[in-house]
Amino acid sequence: MNHEPLVKPITEKSIHLSDMGSFYVGGRKIKVEGQEPHEVLFSPGATPVTINPNGDYWVEQMYVQYFLPKSDNGGLPLLLWHGGGSTGNIWETTPDGRDGWLNVFLKLGWPVYCSDAVERGRSGWPCSPLDIWKEQPSRASCQDVRDRMRAGPFTVDDDGCVQPNADCQFPFESFDNHMKGNVPRWITTDEAVLAAYTALVERVGPCIILATSQGASFACRVAEARSDIVRGLVLVEPAQAGSGQPLSDDFRVPMLGLFGDYIETDPRWVLNQKNCRDYADAIQSKGAAAEVISLPEIGLSGNTHCMPCERNNAEIAGIIHQWLTDNVSRPSE
Amino acid sequence: MNHEPLVKPITEKSIHLSDMGSFYVGGRKIKVEGQEPHEVLFSPGATPVTINPNGDYWVEQMYVQYFLPKSDNGGLPLLLWHGGGSTGNIWETTPDGRDGWLNVFLKLGWPVYCSDAVERGRSGWPCSPLDIWKEQPSRASCQDVRDRMRAGPFTVDDDGCVQPNADCQFPFESFDNHMKGNVPRWITTDEAVLAAYTALVERVGPCIILATSQGASFACRVAEARSDIVRGLVLVEPAQAGSGQPLSDDFRVPMLGLFGDYIETDPRWVLNQKNCRDYADAIQSKGAAAEVISLPEIGLSGNTHCMPCERNNAEIAGIIHQWLTDNVSRPSE
Repeated sequence: MNHEPLVKPITEKSIHLSDMGSFYVGGRKIKVEGQEPHEVLFSPGATPVTINPNGDYWVEQMYVQYFLPKSDNGGLPLLLWHGGGSTGNIWETTPDGRDGWLNVFLKLGWPVYCSDAVERGRSGWPCSPLDIWKEQPSRASCQDVRDRMRAGPFTVDDDGCVQPNADCQFPFESFDNHMKGNVPRWITTDEAVLAAYTALVERVGPCIILATSQGASFACRVAEARSDIVRGLVLVEPAQAGSGQPLSDDFRVPMLGLFGDYIETDPRWVLNQKNCRDYADAIQSKGAAAEVISLPEIGLSGNTHCMPCERNNAEIAGIIHQWLTDNVSRPSE
Repeated sequence: MNHEPLVKPITEKSIHLSDMGSFYVGGRKIKVEGQEPHEVLFSPGATPVTINPNGDYWVEQMYVQYFLPKSDNGGLPLLLWHGGGSTGNIWETTPDGRDGWLNVFLKLGWPVYCSDAVERGRSGWPCSPLDIWKEQPSRASCQDVRDRMRAGPFTVDDDGCVQPNADCQFPFESFDNHMKGNVPRWITTDEAVLAAYTALVERVGPCIILATSQGASFACRVAEARSDIVRGLVLVEPAQAGSGQPLSDDFRVPMLGLFGDYIETDPRWVLNQKNCRDYADAIQSKGAAAEVISLPEIGLSGNTHCMPCERNNAEIAGIIHQWLTDNVSRPSE
């Protein structure tokens, strides 16, 4: 199939904002009691400080940074939700130094809210003396991330270096920059993460969620519970599409799913794509628009699981922009 | 002493940027070997994934977000370095929802770089299977932070609520928002933090560091080691001023120190302020401008240790702006 770019390239370099800032949502205050005060030397040569660990602490809150374009496109706020092991950083500059989807969607006129899921990045986590999560977090190695991102075949060049396939869209020459943004993740914090994301949509009001990988499972659960507020869903390589529960009778949230290349090389992604298509069918049966786009089927080859960071990320953002413009009502409508 | 605002209030609401984005600096790659692969269920209902913990990991890198004004004031890039237990978040929106120093300095025309020190926020930290830091991090309780920020006397009102002094500049009605940004800190990571900050100034080039509390001790050490790059230092309530080593013969970095109110209520801060004045004397003896301003002595009362978040933060930023304009050479000069 021939592929023609759906929107014109973004030539604007500057970003004019009516406002930008950050806030926290959700979380709960817990009390620590019965511990002994102790003396701490915060750095060599500094004056010692006596710390009393007893008292109140905030846990499970979520950090959100927002950017409001001076001239917006009339669309609803776009909430960017990252995947597992990441922070909101993945929406900013790409590993090879180009505009990420934060800048691209701002330049397309969308108000953008970029958050760090509970436990990650600037949301913080409950270390000692807080003892609320019994499990330890983990991180993924460079090799593990590379092997699971479905980058297609690798070859060894004449210098003995491992090289990705010629059509690969991920900028592997900057893979180290990508991995520096990888952070610890817990696998038993779903309810806390979900509570904070729910608090976010309640604070922002009518909005569209654009989520990738693990973030997509939270997006579906929040959209299904609060379909009065969530007006559109974009699921980019969702690790899980839909909550697994039947949709309520009044669910009318348009959904766009996007999948990259080499799906057939990983049975887990064959299943994830099938589940997303089933989810689209379920949404359509409620009368809302729903579509799952396989990028290779529209002529874009070589995209991996890390689409927002890839060489053609602006073109893919353009596809999303056009779909949202066509399928999600604006506040004034 | 009568106090007159040193610069006119900022009335501009919008922010016009030539660019914004983020990157990582510093860090090192370490290898994990000899561990058993294990199966992980990332969320209930998801397809199980086999994780191989062996391989390479990045540790001790630092996250940096930058904002470049479309019309800058001709000054050098301003690097904002937070204090202990914080992230770059403290420079963004204040707890009570006003412009923080990131926005204020951007509106004054400075290119601004806002980072999360190694181990905090989006810089990530080396959890399992990485075993490079033997110590556990800790967090500070709401009460501990409040008691150590030198907020002046508190009183109990007719409803039994604890109320700050009438002149207190910290927005205590929003103290919970402030505490939600509090993150774990290690006290044995100074060398890693310092290495990453050094990598930052080497990447940015000639620059000014504006640092607060713990960040100020790193700022001094970096400025003393790289006085060829660091062209100005602003130390806001420095926990430690100067590296403790004699200044080199060619050290010519202008330094402004700022202290808030109620210094005399905490012997540690009496000492910190004295040390900063000694540091100013040492810098002046090298022929560079150096000044320590006690805000109450110029007519501003009620500022605590958390100056960048306080009600008069824009006015204090104006004092810093004027001092930098008067004392730090511009790139074109």
